[in-house]
Amino acid sequence: MVRIGIVGARGFTGGELLRLALQHPEYRITYVTSESQTGTPVAEAYPGLHGLTDLRFSAFDPGAAIEAADAFFFARPDGEAMAMVEPLLAAGRKVVDVSGDFRVRSQQTYEQWYGRPHVSPHLLDQAAYGLPELREDVRHAALVANPGCYPTAILLAVAPLFAAGLAEPDSLIADAKSGVSGAGGRSTMDASYSYVAISDNFRAYSVVGHRHIAETEQELERLCGSPVTMSFTPHLLPLVRGILASCYVRLREKPADLTGMYRDYYRNAPFVQVLESTLPEIRYVAGSNACHVAVRYDERTRRASCFSALDNLVKGAAGSAMQNMNLICGLEETAGLRHPATGP
Amino acid sequence: MVRIGIVGARGFTGGELLRLALQHPEYRITYVTSESQTGTPVAEAYPGLHGLTDLRFSAFDPGAAIEAADAFFFARPDGEAMAMVEPLLAAGRKVVDVSGDFRVRSQQTYEQWYGRPHVSPHLLDQAAYGLPELREDVRHAALVANPGCYPTAILLAVAPLFAAGLAEPDSLIADAKSGVSGAGGRSTMDASYSYVAISDNFRAYSVVGHRHIAETEQELERLCGSPVTMSFTPHLLPLVRGILASCYVRLREKPADLTGMYRDYYRNAPFVQVLESTLPEIRYVAGSNACHVAVRYDERTRRASCFSALDNLVKGAAGSAMQNMNLICGLEETAGLRHPATGP
Amino acid sequence: MVRIGIVGARGFTGGELLRLALQHPEYRITYVTSESQTGTPVAEAYPGLHGLTDLRFSAFDPGAAIEAADAFFFARPDGEAMAMVEPLLAAGRKVVDVSGDFRVRSQQTYEQWYGRPHVSPHLLDQAAYGLPELREDVRHAALVANPGCYPTAILLAVAPLFAAGLAEPDSLIADAKSGVSGAGGRSTMDASYSYVAISDNFRAYSVVGHRHIAETEQELERLCGSPVTMSFTPHLLPLVRGILASCYVRLREKPADLTGMYRDYYRNAPFVQVLESTLPEIRYVAGSNACHVAVRYDERTRRASCFSALDNLVKGAAGSAMQNMNLICGLEETAGLRHPATGP
Amino acid sequence: MVRIGIVGARGFTGGELLRLALQHPEYRITYVTSESQTGTPVAEAYPGLHGLTDLRFSAFDPGAAIEAADAFFFARPDGEAMAMVEPLLAAGRKVVDVSGDFRVRSQQTYEQWYGRPHVSPHLLDQAAYGLPELREDVRHAALVANPGCYPTAILLAVAPLFAAGLAEPDSLIADAKSGVSGAGGRSTMDASYSYVAISDNFRAYSVVGHRHIAETEQELERLCGSPVTMSFTPHLLPLVRGILASCYVRLREKPADLTGMYRDYYRNAPFVQVLESTLPEIRYVAGSNACHVAVRYDERTRRASCFSALDNLVKGAAGSAMQNMNLICGLEETAGLRHPATGP
Repeated sequence: MVRIGIVGARGFTGGELLRLALQHPEYRITYVTSESQTGTPVAEAYPGLHGLTDLRFSAFDPGAAIEAADAFFFARPDGEAMAMVEPLLAAGRKVVDVSGDFRVRSQQTYEQWYGRPHVSPHLLDQAAYGLPELREDVRHAALVANPGCYPTAILLAVAPLFAAGLAEPDSLIADAKSGVSGAGGRSTMDASYSYVAISDNFRAYSVVGHRHIAETEQELERLCGSPVTMSFTPHLLPLVRGILASCYVRLREKPADLTGMYRDYYRNAPFVQVLESTLPEIRYVAGSNACHVAVRYDERTRRASCFSALDNLVKGAAGSAMQNMNLICGLEETAGLRHPATGP
Repeated sequence: MVRIGIVGARGFTGGELLRLALQHPEYRITYVTSESQTGTPVAEAYPGLHGLTDLRFSAFDPGAAIEAADAFFFARPDGEAMAMVEPLLAAGRKVVDVSGDFRVRSQQTYEQWYGRPHVSPHLLDQAAYGLPELREDVRHAALVANPGCYPTAILLAVAPLFAAGLAEPDSLIADAKSGVSGAGGRSTMDASYSYVAISDNFRAYSVVGHRHIAETEQELERLCGSPVTMSFTPHLLPLVRGILASCYVRLREKPADLTGMYRDYYRNAPFVQVLESTLPEIRYVAGSNACHVAVRYDERTRRASCFSALDNLVKGAAGSAMQNMNLICGLEETAGLRHPATGP
Repeated sequence: MVRIGIVGARGFTGGELLRLALQHPEYRITYVTSESQTGTPVAEAYPGLHGLTDLRFSAFDPGAAIEAADAFFFARPDGEAMAMVEPLLAAGRKVVDVSGDFRVRSQQTYEQWYGRPHVSPHLLDQAAYGLPELREDVRHAALVANPGCYPTAILLAVAPLFAAGLAEPDSLIADAKSGVSGAGGRSTMDASYSYVAISDNFRAYSVVGHRHIAETEQELERLCGSPVTMSFTPHLLPLVRGILASCYVRLREKPADLTGMYRDYYRNAPFVQVLESTLPEIRYVAGSNACHVAVRYDERTRRASCFSALDNLVKGAAGSAMQNMNLICGLEETAGLRHPATGP
Repeated sequence: MVRIGIVGARGFTGGELLRLALQHPEYRITYVTSESQTGTPVAEAYPGLHGLTDLRFSAFDPGAAIEAADAFFFARPDGEAMAMVEPLLAAGRKVVDVSGDFRVRSQQTYEQWYGRPHVSPHLLDQAAYGLPELREDVRHAALVANPGCYPTAILLAVAPLFAAGLAEPDSLIADAKSGVSGAGGRSTMDASYSYVAISDNFRAYSVVGHRHIAETEQELERLCGSPVTMSFTPHLLPLVRGILASCYVRLREKPADLTGMYRDYYRNAPFVQVLESTLPEIRYVAGSNACHVAVRYDERTRRASCFSALDNLVKGAAGSAMQNMNLICGLEETAGLRHPATGP
């Protein structure tokens, strides 16, 4: 049994970590923080947890945290974990951070895309980029940088093409669509996330220069060994959970069996399902840690169209964080994560 | 480990039974039927179950069923289970039926409300009405009639008032609102359940004479000991999962502490949460087996307003069926049913 | 051509007044106020009006208003118009107020339900309650109190029963469901109106003592000539526009032809459609000034179930305000209001 | 006053034509056909039109049609108008066809993309492609091929780049998202358009080889004078009305002022709004004939991202058909089409 702390448990990812970790057979949640809700019972803030937990929120305190738990999920806004995790790591605690603080290996690249200095650049080398479907190194890390929701969707959609050297490296266009729970907190209320502004509506945002480009290009470069420049446009769907990424890549040559290549690439990835005769749909992954992927080739344009669907709060955040936590704690990768999608 | 059969696994309730039973620690699903999908892998029909099951659908056959499983969920349309369950019961198998076939104790009442003869009237006495929050007798039955989704919501909302003799027995008005997954099958496609007909829309239906009145009045009469006549109107919400029932009851006298009385009444009911300062919301129960209940009294009108929220596919169907199955199989009542709501 | 001013044009009702009045063949909008958007072009605040107007928002100033327009819609929050309209009326301008300020005839009743003093009680007698389907006196008024959205729906659903003396006067229960645009402003952002809080959700609110009870009981008493006490519960639907009211009334005697009686009662009401073989649905009225009504009788309970559907922003607010404005300005009652519903 | 016939008035586009044409100040609808609803009052099939029309559906008959009306909208499925319009044209009637029958100039290209022979190839030369924002020739035609909804959105998003010779002609990727009313009829019910299949869901479809590619490439080639090959992927949004197209084009050189160039290109197009500081959103065009467009340039990738939003039933079908009809009948281009968006 691993004693688990959740730091920043009042945002959407924090809430999802609570929901999932409470059902995990090997976790016991012993420490939960929220600066705005200190002292409040967790089940009062989350009526969906009524009867399932007696925990209360604390304010974060490193000493109390080290005392209370063995391993921590950090779910604070970008720029905060980098100033908080060091004492926990020094005391031998493990950390999975869901913010963008440790995803970009190069300090300079980080500062360019995030527009702020990095206060703990020495930790960047220690952190593993937590996409175990593409990387072996995660299980040996004490600090895991959990990938962004969009990068997870895009990387799982196109990784086999880049790893095989089939992709023209400046040809990737990723047009991604996310539900509103990908867009931050519950309390920082903003009229652009009101029901009236989202329902029956659809729009692009952050059309140029979204931060998630940095980590996506970094990982693709690692896979293909040459510089990658991508276009990325996020959009906001009128639904709560889910991302669908539609990625377009020009191929160097006509491929043989793309679906077969994908299946081979993901043969050891328990959460990636490569579809053959159907296309990914958000409803078949929402609520689960699955990522559904499909690829099609168009001879007219020499482009592969690559689609992936995942739940931005699960495989795109809390579920993937638990998958990483399982690995660094020596548990089964899939422990506590084999929920089916919730769609009827 | 109980070997479980699901008969009629392609409707909404059947699909939810699959989703929940696959996660149950003490169940092993060994038999799954669908007349229209015989031979198809379950995970092909339900892409949300990819990677979680290798089962295939069979056509129902009593002999094969008795061989394959110890206990059965029946999720066939009204009027079918009554002709199918007898050989299974005779062979010592247990059955929880989610249709309306065994809910009404009196054959005459059944035939009047359902407009068809009952082909196995001798089974009506054997069947227990499976609302364990109101009845002790469920755990001793071999055949459980799982309550309707609306009756579950209404009964849990008003039972304490009728049990205490506070309710005027002809005063109950139940105005209930359900998501579209309450409205039958997946394959019997009908333009009134198209996206265009449901989204941005709301309407009442079956305004006079809905079948669920029969079982609701029956159980209320049992609680209060006198004849009950209720008005009931179902409505269709633009959402998939969830029922909210708003019930209005005139009281014989001014009550003391209604919320306290409700809490006392449900003190041993693990899935009923009586709210005090807030009101039930569908989002806090969807995906879970919880029923949230609240009651308010208005002196001007001498009426109590009683609200309940539940997930029609879980506490209103598949979850409640598993709760009953747990009881008749001697398992913990809550086994496999402590999922939090899925809302973020 | 009537020169029109809209005071408070940045709320939902103000926006709808702009949308409708811009299409009115006999109106010219000459004055539009918003305290928070002074100087901003209207089409910048409402991108849906791009290319349709060059107006800019002003701050409200009585002198400028009197100069600029002949007739005014007031769409300010409750409690403000009562302190603003007097100089306009004194200068011979006409006013239709969509707030609750002038709906209740008795100062004492107003203060009891609204919990604040009325600063212009002498205007209460002058104001006509603007539901022309029930009242003849509207067309002679200079000040019209536009009815609340819920009272409009409830009154149109049950008026014929009360006017005919058929209704038991303490038996009315109105269970009403509204889209979120009924719940106030655009700028006063509140996490309970976020997409995540509304979508896939449904809940009751203001379960006891909603202000709209006062005007509804007042008008029903006028119709039936005796004291009326009703129960009223509003609920929040996951959609933007529309109200459906389900009203239950016990009848003194078995009625003959309820639908016929309703059709007769509304024979001169151009916006009320009494349905016979179908029930009201929000999608068939949204975007239009129509109110669809249906009534059914249940002999078992001696209750009539009365349903009405309307668009809370049109017949429940801006459209009805234009209908009243047409009447007091001597225009055709239906001018500018014959839009079909927008549903496909 | 133009006497208008609507042939095929029971699909989504036919219904929208009814809704819009009933409000047109210069149209009188005199002929409405539906093969499945012959004899039924139009307002019975469309309850949103109650009180607005006494028309009944006829079965199509060329003689009766020629007698009854001066100009016709054809809203039949692909492949039918080509066999129906000739007698009407021969009798001097005007026709705007919303199907794909006359959009592709080359018979061979038509047959290749549509997979069927064209039965009236001699009419292909007569038909004008009805996108008046890009073409002058529409107003002189007797037969107008109304563009597809996706092509309208894509062409309006990228035309200025192709007309200016800035676009690399094999670089266009159009990732388009549509509401479900773009997907055919009301009666041809299909479980993939049920509420459960669409709500809380999002997916791509027709990933390779969608018919709309043919007309889009044809018109872009006309604009830029060289062969164009595009990738096009449609997706299905959980909403009823609206398309957002996100188009990616690599530019030959760094452009100066793209927004200025767009504004100049569309200076005479009354329904196209080029946004500068904001991006198109479906809610600001739904219900109106407007198309909102924006363009952004990314130096890192040398790509322009071009966005357009329109209502697929209005500017994407019925509204655009009325715009074309206005032009060929010598009316004001905007007559009957200046509705604001319906969003609050």
